[in-house]
Amino acid sequence: MTKKDVLVLKDLLGTNNQIAAEIRRELRARGILCVNLLSSPGSGKTTVLEALADRLGGGHRMAVIEGDIETERDAERIRARGIPAWQITTGGACHLEAKMVGKVLGEVPADIDFLFIENVGNLVCPAGYDLGESLRCVLLSSPEGDDKPGKYPRAFLTADILLLTKADLLPFLPFDPEKAAAEALTINPRLKVFRLSALKGEGMDELAAFFVEALARERARRA
Amino acid sequence: MTKKDVLVLKDLLGTNNQIAAEIRRELRARGILCVNLLSSPGSGKTTVLEALADRLGGGHRMAVIEGDIETERDAERIRARGIPAWQITTGGACHLEAKMVGKVLGEVPADIDFLFIENVGNLVCPAGYDLGESLRCVLLSSPEGDDKPGKYPRAFLTADILLLTKADLLPFLPFDPEKAAAEALTINPRLKVFRLSALKGEGMDELAAFFVEALARERARRA
Repeated sequence: MTKKDVLVLKDLLGTNNQIAAEIRRELRARGILCVNLLSSPGSGKTTVLEALADRLGGGHRMAVIEGDIETERDAERIRARGIPAWQITTGGACHLEAKMVGKVLGEVPADIDFLFIENVGNLVCPAGYDLGESLRCVLLSSPEGDDKPGKYPRAFLTADILLLTKADLLPFLPFDPEKAAAEALTINPRLKVFRLSALKGEGMDELAAFFVEALARERARRA
Repeated sequence: MTKKDVLVLKDLLGTNNQIAAEIRRELRARGILCVNLLSSPGSGKTTVLEALADRLGGGHRMAVIEGDIETERDAERIRARGIPAWQITTGGACHLEAKMVGKVLGEVPADIDFLFIENVGNLVCPAGYDLGESLRCVLLSSPEGDDKPGKYPRAFLTADILLLTKADLLPFLPFDPEKAAAEALTINPRLKVFRLSALKGEGMDELAAFFVEALARERARRA
C-alpha cells in the first residue's frame, strides 16, 4: 500500500466511525439494544437469529438488518418468522459499513427492543467496521476448526460475545470447544462464551436471557 | 467510494494483474501447474492439500504456498507430510496478492510439478485477485449450506473447479449437494465439480487424477 492509499483508507474509516457513533447515540436514545453478528459464511448467523426469534418473547420485539453480497434469502427467512427484516445487498462489497445501516435506520420501528445486524459472511473485513452496535458477536461453528481464533484474531479481539455454534456436530468432528474458547480468551479475555446448537435449541435459552439482561443494563445506563 | 478511491483501486488491481501475468509466464515456462484454492475459513483447504500430498505420487512433486492473516499453522501441517511449504502471513490483509506470491517464487524448487496456493480463508475478497494460477479452485463445505453460491457469486464465477467438501457430514446436515452444484453451474457453467471427503478419502483419487491430467495438458500446450 502506498502512502496515498493509507490516507484514503484512514479517511474512509474516520467517516465510518463518525456515522457509527451517530447510529449508536440514536439507538441508545430509542432504548434499542443493537447487536452486530459477524462470522465466516455458513457459521449459522441466520439460524441463531431464527432461534432467537422463537425465544425473545415476553413483550420483547426484535428486528433484523441482513447484509449479503447478493440475494434477499436471509431477510426472507427472518420475515417468515414474523420478524421485520431489511436486506442490504452490498453488490460485491465484503462487509457492511455504518452508512449502509444508517440508510435503513429510518424504517426501523421505534418500539422494538433488539436490532440484530447480520454482517456479510466474512471473518476478516467486517471486524474493521463499527456499525454503531452496542454488542458485537462473533460466531465460530464447530466444522470450521478450533484453530481459527489465532488465524483470524481481529474478529475475536473486537467482539464482546463468542458463539460456538453447531455443537450438535461435535460427535462427528475433530473440534475441541475448550481449545477454541481458550485461544479466543487469550486474544480477548473479556469475551462471554456460549456453546450452542441453534438447530437443536441447545444453549439458546441462555443466550436469549443474556440479551434480555443486556437490554436492561443498556436502558439502566440511559436512565 | 469516491472517484479518487476507485482510481486508486484500479491502479492497485492493474499492478496486481501485471505481476500475476509474469508469474503465470514464469510457472508455465518451468512446466509447473499452479492452482489457487479459495474458500471460507474452515472449508477444508489444508485438509484437501494433505490428502493430495498422499496421492500425487508417481514421480510427481508438489509444493504449497500458504496464505493466512496470522500463524504458521497451515504450513506446518503441510511440511509434516514432507511437502515444501511457505507461509505468507498477511498481518491483517484479507486476501493474497500476486506480489506476495512473487516474493516467495524464487525459493520454490524448479523441479516441482504442482504449486498449490492456499488463499486466506475468505469467500469474498480473494476472488478479485489473480495470483498467476492456471486453475482456480473454490471449496464449499457441506456445513456452510447449499445457498452459498448465489450469495457469494464472484468466487464461483471466477473458478475453474468446485470442490464440495466434507461429504462425510451430509447425513447430519440440511445440505443438498445437487442444489449447491446446480446453483454454482448456473453462475458458471464451465465449473468442473467434485464431491469430496478429504478426511475419509472419498473422491480424492479422482481429484488427484484430474490434476495429473491438467498438468499434462498444461505441458502439451507449452510444447
